[in-house]
Amino acid sequence: MVSRKKFDLGPMLKPKSVAVIGASHDSEKVGHIILQNYINGGYSGRLYAVNKDASSKILGIDVYTSIMKIKDRIDLAVIAIPAQMVPEALEECGKAKVKTAVVVSGGFSEVGETELQNEIVRIADRYGIAMLGPNCLGVMDPRSRVDTLFLPTYKLSKAQIGGVSFVAQSGAVGSTVLDLISGEGFGLSKFFSYGNAAQVDEVDILEYLMNDDETKVIVMYIEGIKRGKEFIEIAKKITKIKPVIVLKAGKTAAGASAAHSHTASLAGSYEAHDAVFRQFGFVIANDISELIYYSKIFAYESEPSGGRVAIITNGGGTGVLTADAVSSTKHLTLAEFSGATKKILTASMPKLVNIRNPLDLAGDADSKRYGDAIAAVAGDQNTDIIAVIVLFQTPGADSEVAAELIKIKQTANKPMIVISIGSEYTQMHKIMMESGGVPVFDSPLSAATALEGLLDYGNYKKAVA
Amino acid sequence: MVSRKKFDLGPMLKPKSVAVIGASHDSEKVGHIILQNYINGGYSGRLYAVNKDASSKILGIDVYTSIMKIKDRIDLAVIAIPAQMVPEALEECGKAKVKTAVVVSGGFSEVGETELQNEIVRIADRYGIAMLGPNCLGVMDPRSRVDTLFLPTYKLSKAQIGGVSFVAQSGAVGSTVLDLISGEGFGLSKFFSYGNAAQVDEVDILEYLMNDDETKVIVMYIEGIKRGKEFIEIAKKITKIKPVIVLKAGKTAAGASAAHSHTASLAGSYEAHDAVFRQFGFVIANDISELIYYSKIFAYESEPSGGRVAIITNGGGTGVLTADAVSSTKHLTLAEFSGATKKILTASMPKLVNIRNPLDLAGDADSKRYGDAIAAVAGDQNTDIIAVIVLFQTPGADSEVAAELIKIKQTANKPMIVISIGSEYTQMHKIMMESGGVPVFDSPLSAATALEGLLDYGNYKKAVA
Repeated sequence: MVSRKKFDLGPMLKPKSVAVIGASHDSEKVGHIILQNYINGGYSGRLYAVNKDASSKILGIDVYTSIMKIKDRIDLAVIAIPAQMVPEALEECGKAKVKTAVVVSGGFSEVGETELQNEIVRIADRYGIAMLGPNCLGVMDPRSRVDTLFLPTYKLSKAQIGGVSFVAQSGAVGSTVLDLISGEGFGLSKFFSYGNAAQVDEVDILEYLMNDDETKVIVMYIEGIKRGKEFIEIAKKITKIKPVIVLKAGKTAAGASAAHSHTASLAGSYEAHDAVFRQFGFVIANDISELIYYSKIFAYESEPSGGRVAIITNGGGTGVLTADAVSSTKHLTLAEFSGATKKILTASMPKLVNIRNPLDLAGDADSKRYGDAIAAVAGDQNTDIIAVIVLFQTPGADSEVAAELIKIKQTANKPMIVISIGSEYTQMHKIMMESGGVPVFDSPLSAATALEGLLDYGNYKKAVA
Repeated sequence: MVSRKKFDLGPMLKPKSVAVIGASHDSEKVGHIILQNYINGGYSGRLYAVNKDASSKILGIDVYTSIMKIKDRIDLAVIAIPAQMVPEALEECGKAKVKTAVVVSGGFSEVGETELQNEIVRIADRYGIAMLGPNCLGVMDPRSRVDTLFLPTYKLSKAQIGGVSFVAQSGAVGSTVLDLISGEGFGLSKFFSYGNAAQVDEVDILEYLMNDDETKVIVMYIEGIKRGKEFIEIAKKITKIKPVIVLKAGKTAAGASAAHSHTASLAGSYEAHDAVFRQFGFVIANDISELIYYSKIFAYESEPSGGRVAIITNGGGTGVLTADAVSSTKHLTLAEFSGATKKILTASMPKLVNIRNPLDLAGDADSKRYGDAIAAVAGDQNTDIIAVIVLFQTPGADSEVAAELIKIKQTANKPMIVISIGSEYTQMHKIMMESGGVPVFDSPLSAATALEGLLDYGNYKKAVA
């Protein structure tokens, strides 16, 4: 495909004015749900409803029979009407000088209606409208309170505001990830579900997110890449600026065939994509759960100076499992404490604590013992990363330990993560620690996987700097 | 080590009478917490408190200055007193013909007091007491309401009653797993934390669980095996009867060294252990999270007749990822639907549903569409396993879909699992489905891992039958 103009997605994510085309009185209709979500979400820009047939207000919002009747410049038109009616609506958007459009309607190339899809692209191109979709969930930005998702809000827990942006070709994968991160302490910057990618595609979105100061980490789910050359160009630039985590579907022949059936993506060989991702320092996830682990580590931590991990634990067995998990990675190793560190630890720890890595503080370890141990290891020049295991089932571990870790984290000059495994009492402390800036992982393996991703990305950045 | 007598652990798990030695008025003392847990847990057997110095009742329970003063035959003595006092207490247990003892006290070989540990083994052996520990959390059986764990109950959510038994050398790993499974629909049969394994060890416990009708699945965390020959003997027998899932610490040199420091386990080479586990059909977990996935699949499902998986989904992308996850295993494959199945599906599905595997029912799939699709695939002779993806964020998926899956499961003649990913609304439906007998996994990868474990174990059983 030829190189073509760049689209400004700014008005789509930070619109001063939004029109919902297909707004409806019928509470089951997509156009109703979207309008409702804007109102419930507290969107503070100017909001308009468009419906060819409507007369009275919908949800208290004035209804226009055409977007051309609105005496305001519209930044974003959300189009939720049957596919055959989209060209006319988009044509009117063009005449009304609408800047961007999200076409949530399905019924285009994904069901063989390629010509209809080509038609709306021609219209959007002719009027210079940046168009996302069709057949997509659209965009979400918790800061501007833009939310074009037509999913009932009770089914989807709200994510916090943060620095992680998600880009998903698949609406289903996108919405599950959005829902999943609501329980995490890191928050959302932008969400894109781009569906058929008829015009605006992953390259445009990456370009936008690369320059978006609110986005610290980019996370992608993709089934196929259309503009390979342009993708490589942006890939080369973007990872020098911020980390990009990618989950690519179609890893196996069966998966690639399924992906083709799903979004008509010509998946190409997974190996070819994988090679490009690796060449440009993308962090490659193998599962949705890994997307979350990587999102967390990059949201909370900067790259470490090396891969030597100190493990501090109040449970011996979990320390052993973490030593195994760290040593099983390619690039992380267990730190060897310096003589000075060993001296400090010997002086500050009770006799029963064996001064070695993993450092087992024992089941009665309290906030003081944790604090002393971490302080010693934080100052150790042989340690690059601190992994603290806190098992809250043990008698000594309580909110004071969590508070101590939050305090230490504020001055720590190296990545420090926590591994806490368990149910309600543990989850409460996870929320507490993550609110305080300490990322918490639910298993030794997930922590080691995340830390290695952080290290590898850091090494890539050093190599290309 | 020489072959030696077998211990009857029956009275330890199903005691008609329990004495807590070291029962205390001090609510922070282990002996107090254990007594309290028996009372709170609703233990209905005869309960006694023993304290050398105590006079008045503790928590309403009569206190004896020695176990010998109790005019009742004691099935289980829980010993929670300082290490040096344990020999005398155990000697008195012997004289009082106590059948079994759990020594929770620490301060033995794990801190170099090997002679003290040898002494209590000699006493237990002399009197024929089956002794668990020392330095352990002991046992739990939610049916008999035996619970020797000295952990505050608010830190540890209660697991349901079920068929999975956990055996953990490490108290910390054991208690986190116990806590973790409280959120799962499968329940607990027995829990053993056996600590220093001075007398009763993993071989005795496996022997007991092999013959325990309440135990359907055995899950182990081990750092080292003492009696290799006897372990192999029991290993050979046990997996013909029920599945054994094992997480072995010390996979790496660093982990093995840490394990040695933790429980003085001579870990031997991980490879040697691994070879034994594989030879005898153990299911090998690589992480605590995998322990949970395997526990779940074996608790809910019988072995499949083969490894051909049908995937039914309401989210295309998640279907693709599941196809990838299934195809990435060694032994699972995607099923190729028979001509008859394709005909049935073509007749019953809407036009937009592409009749292939994964079968994408689309985002508006409701209980009827799920029901029709699963019924067709359940009757397909080319399908051995059904993996149903339900993304509850989509408009069509609700409690009716969950209810339909529960209904179908009751007559399904092949393993059927669900993959649902998400937060609160999803978790509510997970609980609903698991209560109804349908296991729910939180990612394609975890489901595929679990299913392959089930298939491999089934193949092992066929091979040795």
